[in-house]
Amino acid sequence: MLSERMSSLTPYTPGEQPRDNTYIKLNTNENAYGPSPKIHEFLSGFDIDRLRLYPDPLSRNLRQALADEKGVDTKNVFLSNSSDEALSFTFYAFFDAPRGNLLFPTYTYSFYPVYAGFYDIPFTRMPLADDYSINLDDYLESKSCGVILPNPNAPTGIALPISEIKRFLDSYPQDRVVVIDEAYIDFGAESSVSLINDYPNLLVVGTFSKGKSLAALRLGFAIGQEGLIQAISTVKDSFNSYPVDILAQHIGVIAIKDREYYQEINGKIMKTRDEFTKKLDAMGWKTLPSKTNFLFTRKAGWSGEEIYKKLKDSGFLVRYFNQEGISDFVRITIGTDKDMKSLEATMDKLFS
Amino acid sequence: MLSERMSSLTPYTPGEQPRDNTYIKLNTNENAYGPSPKIHEFLSGFDIDRLRLYPDPLSRNLRQALADEKGVDTKNVFLSNSSDEALSFTFYAFFDAPRGNLLFPTYTYSFYPVYAGFYDIPFTRMPLADDYSINLDDYLESKSCGVILPNPNAPTGIALPISEIKRFLDSYPQDRVVVIDEAYIDFGAESSVSLINDYPNLLVVGTFSKGKSLAALRLGFAIGQEGLIQAISTVKDSFNSYPVDILAQHIGVIAIKDREYYQEINGKIMKTRDEFTKKLDAMGWKTLPSKTNFLFTRKAGWSGEEIYKKLKDSGFLVRYFNQEGISDFVRITIGTDKDMKSLEATMDKLFS
Repeated sequence: MLSERMSSLTPYTPGEQPRDNTYIKLNTNENAYGPSPKIHEFLSGFDIDRLRLYPDPLSRNLRQALADEKGVDTKNVFLSNSSDEALSFTFYAFFDAPRGNLLFPTYTYSFYPVYAGFYDIPFTRMPLADDYSINLDDYLESKSCGVILPNPNAPTGIALPISEIKRFLDSYPQDRVVVIDEAYIDFGAESSVSLINDYPNLLVVGTFSKGKSLAALRLGFAIGQEGLIQAISTVKDSFNSYPVDILAQHIGVIAIKDREYYQEINGKIMKTRDEFTKKLDAMGWKTLPSKTNFLFTRKAGWSGEEIYKKLKDSGFLVRYFNQEGISDFVRITIGTDKDMKSLEATMDKLFS
Repeated sequence: MLSERMSSLTPYTPGEQPRDNTYIKLNTNENAYGPSPKIHEFLSGFDIDRLRLYPDPLSRNLRQALADEKGVDTKNVFLSNSSDEALSFTFYAFFDAPRGNLLFPTYTYSFYPVYAGFYDIPFTRMPLADDYSINLDDYLESKSCGVILPNPNAPTGIALPISEIKRFLDSYPQDRVVVIDEAYIDFGAESSVSLINDYPNLLVVGTFSKGKSLAALRLGFAIGQEGLIQAISTVKDSFNSYPVDILAQHIGVIAIKDREYYQEINGKIMKTRDEFTKKLDAMGWKTLPSKTNFLFTRKAGWSGEEIYKKLKDSGFLVRYFNQEGISDFVRITIGTDKDMKSLEATMDKLFS
């Protein structure tokens, strides 16, 4: 009954999404605060008769707003139903076996190997440095059909400075695409969008899920030179002409325009993160330096799974990874100040 | 820069979506009437803080509502960001070259050959009968990896009786999947959903765009036995874990529950369609018998393109197909009574 393709699939496993509110949910890196309050006004005033007609397949208003925010042209912007969809189209458009393996970090977003399986793309996991940072020099050594890496990386939370990305792009073959996945860019790291005019092979992927606090809306994007955007648009138009619904198109614009609100909430999250990191230091935890809305941390004598279980029993959901080399870490999303104070007290008690 | 896959892509071309309201839009088969008024209440009362968290990846509430509507179990229901997405996942999961060509009608939804190109699936276009109906006996004659057909078919509008589909399924190999695409099922044809318990290889695909008047929301589904649903769920989880946003999940439930409202508007559309068909008959047009919310019609002496252009000049958008054998037809979506009266007067004047 099944196609041969199905044998190469290993589906992605998302973090737990409990349907009740019994846990303090710090496991899937959602924003601690709700999205722009202006969205409420919009939804209340929305003329539902507009749901009748197909949405703009080119999402023109939202592409314009995003282009303005990022300082690029609309022709440099692609929109999708979540950044996962943009990533999937990107793998389809740019990566294939004949030109070599796709390279990405050993510890990284676990959907990358899933996409590679989906499209039958061979890949190589590149080891991280001892401090868990990405060493881009290693990526120049073997023949590859492309490179994908998150900046900041997940689940480590560590960001690469844009100067290193620029240096890498100067040496990497310009006929192979380099994807920088900026899902967590709004929490203090430097965006590579400013480099796109200089590198025709640089594609930056982003999402409204984290920094814009719209995970439930499914809205993502890619930014790059026109050739790259046209290629993934061709993939989209061969898959689903209208992946972005009309409500998402409007809400995306509202979120982009309420810059002040998002600076406030994301600023608060960064402050909470840095304070919480210090508390963890004081309690003897070893935490990687994070430029995201989560921390990757461990404490001698405990496995990630043990920490996860003890915290879950106390009402906190965090995430651990059953992967050699990082199995003693947990990933903790930065919640509200109140959540983190409560978590701090619990951790102090449980892991002393 | 591009992968080798890209060479097999020929993107789908959707109908025109003008951004202003200067045309009476009868070209993309949207519902003539808006969706359930209860959606307005929902949007006004929606707690936007819920946009912060990822949506239920399994769309459980909506799957339950749809299962109840269709008289099946939730395990038989798959949800997607539009039926196009469900179709794409279906092509991936079930159709491939080693077992033979995929079969579909010569004149049919023009996204099927696009998906075939996307996943490199060889296909055969099966001729229609002289009256433009589908003759399923032909589909038994050659080795094939599967069959996909819309019922009613588009752009012809002609429906197959469920007895013929049943008879076909009795003869077709049960290890090859048969997809019935019921995008237009809510305008008078018989659904094949009632057959799924008897045929493990039958997958029925549907949409909220037409009968539920929610084209802007991007919501589709597939219904079949558990094995088929699990397979396309695996594809989804290897592509995008959360394709259906939270607003679509809620609005879908509301629409399903407002059965009375939809019976009224779709009943009205069927009545308008049948009346308009008679008017066309009286004006000398030849119209195929439609069980959809559109008509496929022609008039001796005119090409589809000529009719399209003259109607566009008069403020009506319809669609024609530059494809040998149907190039003298236009496809006209059934609009409101007012729209159709106005169109009738215009056609009477232009094509006498």
